[in-house]
Amino acid sequence: MTGLDPDNWDDLRRLGHRMIDDMVDRLATLRDGPVWRPMPDAVRDALHDVLPAGPTSPEILYERFRELIAPYATGNTHPGFMGWVHGGGTAVGMLAELLAGGLNANCGGRDHAPVEIERAVIGWAARIMGFPDEVTGLLVTGSSMANMIAVVTASRAVPDGLALRRQGVGGRGLVGYAAATAHGCVARAFDLTGLGSDALRVLPVASDHRMDLAALRAAIAADRAAGLEPFIVIGTAGTVDSGAIDDLDGIADIAAAEGLWFHVDGAFGALAMLSPRYRPALRGLERADSLAFDFHKWAQVPYDAGCILVRAPGRQAAAFAQSLAYLSREDRGLAGNAPWFCDLGPDLSRGFRALKVWMTLGTYGSDRMGQMVDACCAVARHLAARVDSEPLLERLAPVGLNIVCFRVRVPGVDLDRLNGELVKDLHESGVAAPSTTMVNGVRAIRAAIVNHRTVAADVDDMVDALLRLLAVRLENAAD
Amino acid sequence: MTGLDPDNWDDLRRLGHRMIDDMVDRLATLRDGPVWRPMPDAVRDALHDVLPAGPTSPEILYERFRELIAPYATGNTHPGFMGWVHGGGTAVGMLAELLAGGLNANCGGRDHAPVEIERAVIGWAARIMGFPDEVTGLLVTGSSMANMIAVVTASRAVPDGLALRRQGVGGRGLVGYAAATAHGCVARAFDLTGLGSDALRVLPVASDHRMDLAALRAAIAADRAAGLEPFIVIGTAGTVDSGAIDDLDGIADIAAAEGLWFHVDGAFGALAMLSPRYRPALRGLERADSLAFDFHKWAQVPYDAGCILVRAPGRQAAAFAQSLAYLSREDRGLAGNAPWFCDLGPDLSRGFRALKVWMTLGTYGSDRMGQMVDACCAVARHLAARVDSEPLLERLAPVGLNIVCFRVRVPGVDLDRLNGELVKDLHESGVAAPSTTMVNGVRAIRAAIVNHRTVAADVDDMVDALLRLLAVRLENAAD
Ligand SMILES: Cc1ncc(COP(=O)(O)O)c(C=O)c1O
Ligand SMILES: Cc1ncc(COP(=O)(O)O)c(C=O)c1O
Repeated sequence: MTGLDPDNWDDLRRLGHRMIDDMVDRLATLRDGPVWRPMPDAVRDALHDVLPAGPTSPEILYERFRELIAPYATGNTHPGFMGWVHGGGTAVGMLAELLAGGLNANCGGRDHAPVEIERAVIGWAARIMGFPDEVTGLLVTGSSMANMIAVVTASRAVPDGLALRRQGVGGRGLVGYAAATAHGCVARAFDLTGLGSDALRVLPVASDHRMDLAALRAAIAADRAAGLEPFIVIGTAGTVDSGAIDDLDGIADIAAAEGLWFHVDGAFGALAMLSPRYRPALRGLERADSLAFDFHKWAQVPYDAGCILVRAPGRQAAAFAQSLAYLSREDRGLAGNAPWFCDLGPDLSRGFRALKVWMTLGTYGSDRMGQMVDACCAVARHLAARVDSEPLLERLAPVGLNIVCFRVRVPGVDLDRLNGELVKDLHESGVAAPSTTMVNGVRAIRAAIVNHRTVAADVDDMVDALLRLLAVRLENAAD
Repeated sequence: MTGLDPDNWDDLRRLGHRMIDDMVDRLATLRDGPVWRPMPDAVRDALHDVLPAGPTSPEILYERFRELIAPYATGNTHPGFMGWVHGGGTAVGMLAELLAGGLNANCGGRDHAPVEIERAVIGWAARIMGFPDEVTGLLVTGSSMANMIAVVTASRAVPDGLALRRQGVGGRGLVGYAAATAHGCVARAFDLTGLGSDALRVLPVASDHRMDLAALRAAIAADRAAGLEPFIVIGTAGTVDSGAIDDLDGIADIAAAEGLWFHVDGAFGALAMLSPRYRPALRGLERADSLAFDFHKWAQVPYDAGCILVRAPGRQAAAFAQSLAYLSREDRGLAGNAPWFCDLGPDLSRGFRALKVWMTLGTYGSDRMGQMVDACCAVARHLAARVDSEPLLERLAPVGLNIVCFRVRVPGVDLDRLNGELVKDLHESGVAAPSTTMVNGVRAIRAAIVNHRTVAADVDDMVDALLRLLAVRLENAAD
């Protein structure tokens, strides 16, 4: 007994057909089920079986998947999911994962079509974002990694920065800038790359939740006066808490004047470049030296699929490429086709993420993707109007894009606690799944409309359920 | 027009069935085709179309996949693939990717079954590797990332190491140790984490390709004497060039005596723990503070799927966890079930890698996976014997596991060049795809037997083809 191929391929074929049927049924009937349901203890325990020494048929494992896993998924495919910032996925994205799993390509390098598809997809991303065609870029796990790659690339682009690769980043006083509303992974990128999160200066935001540019100028001047070396400023296109978009054009001007790398974290918001309506709000994004964003969020590509673009050719490879004897690049044969993607980021082996991006964007085309972005924003505006019209609800932030922060407001109770409990009640109800965050020091219910399946009726259902659950809580408290 | 769901689910269902049939056929008939074929220019160009504004049916995209992508894949599913260190994948792994793509879970956190499956798989890994059950761990893109996570975790485990997260790693003089045979990604981990690759001391190896432990002791002493702070020693279980296994027990003793973190890079070799025959050669691995290895290599799970295990509970979270307002963890509801996997590594959004690991290991069970490892090693021994019996071939390294380094040796020619050209000839022949590396300063043909489909006849075919191609070259040179 050597290989792991089955004796009977037809059994596997039949199983595959069943899986296709079941998963298509699941996607077609999502609305009939709850957005989420708690996992019974017995299910949770059953998922923690030890690895058997002997074989188990794929059919039996699939039964376990159907009974124990599929019913207790995250819920983000469901139209009622509005928590965090999760894409909803599509059926073509799912089928692309099937194909990618079968090809089993390693896109770290070498000369094969999957690498060309990744190059094509990076080219599509550059066009969407208004970048020149000669950018380099890479599909990665997500914007956390994309932001980290940007910090590494930018820090190696300072004068003599390549020496940092060997000598380490200490002693140089490299500092960067982002608004207080920047995502936590930006500070984490400074932490993980050894610069230290304190080296990321956290700038205040104005009442519109956008970076205070006067504060940016002042911070750069103060750091220079203190003998430090400013190297990067990071704007956000769509902040995670409220969807605000920094004044990217203004930041680009300052970065240019100061000779700093201008990076944009556009994790979800950058995809609004697909929409003629919202593109103007992102003006300046196309001037970035690098851009991080996710296909797994607003582009509805299955997890995980992030992307980093770097404008200046050569910068990314300068920061990441290595030469290893066993990875020599040749003029012909399978070892040809340099440069390789492993030269542009931390990963050597790399899955074929590009196929699901190619199939998803290819199926719908850029126009319809832009309409989908618009539709999500329209649902957010509908929700904002509904919140504004409800006496028991209070909106907590402007709605510039697709995120609505609000809360229940009743007198005489701990509102942070009440709103937190109500969101958990909502989850357990199965109707809708928003999440929470803090806005101006108070706890907000946060609905991020990222799923293409979510329509106005879904956010109305969410509000109705919320008010119902509130009434129950108030009644119980009155008893 | 809002959502991206199809009007007609049955078309998609039919397409999915076709894909299953085609991909199963492909896997069942791999041997009939070449391991690899060069991409015609017209195909390469066709793959670089711009993103259309309008829609394209999934059926048409699938036709393009069939014609332009699938025939020009990496080749690593084919039994003739022996290049680099690539797993071959399995049909159940492919089906798992279909299911994961359909669920579209984000395993960064929250309370759902996919997170439990990842926990279960981490538990399986701990058992296989002889680690205690209370380890923490994470599925990642690959061993490059797993090694980086280990370096970050270890550097934050030094006295007052948590302060490095805010203050940066500079000025502390942290240094680590690995053999010259360690994979390049270990040095890259030092580079990317800001320690600088010079802070990784590169130790010589003895003639058995294993780390020289006297040199390790001397290097630690010299660094301490110079006022530096040794913090980690990295052993390799299966070096990429020759498959050598460092004396892990010996390294563990030194690490314990010196108070250093002991990390093992077992990218492919650690899976030999599944084999009763090879497990003794890995003695000491089970004493590691952390272990990096890949499921996408010897465990035949589709790309990408790496794994990091960290022995001491709390260390990994101490190095990576953040608290962000919008990611608050709750006692019930969808935001429950802390700690979350995003606290254990650099990624926030995380795909459902665990399902393909669970389906693959679950289908075969640990015994058969171990037999598969043995079988690969037996094929490598067969190849070594064949090489040793061929007058025109010369073996260049001992074969301790599954990698055979050898070369063609004929008088009066540039052997490095000749062997390089012959490997490219082999690729273009479609018969077999070994790769090359440098061993003791000379260019080696390197066959890594990692694919479960590769049998003795395949390596014989490779040698036969090689000798044939050599004869052609010698004849042409004589003309
Ligand atoms: C603005 C912003 N940046 C970065 C991230 C992190 O992205 P990922 O989860 O893909 O790592 C997020 C996630 O929601 C985000 O909203
Ligand atoms: C010993 C060793 N370590 C690390 C790596 C890198 O692993 P990955 O390609 O999964 O990042 C490899 C890859 O072949 C390897 O052989």
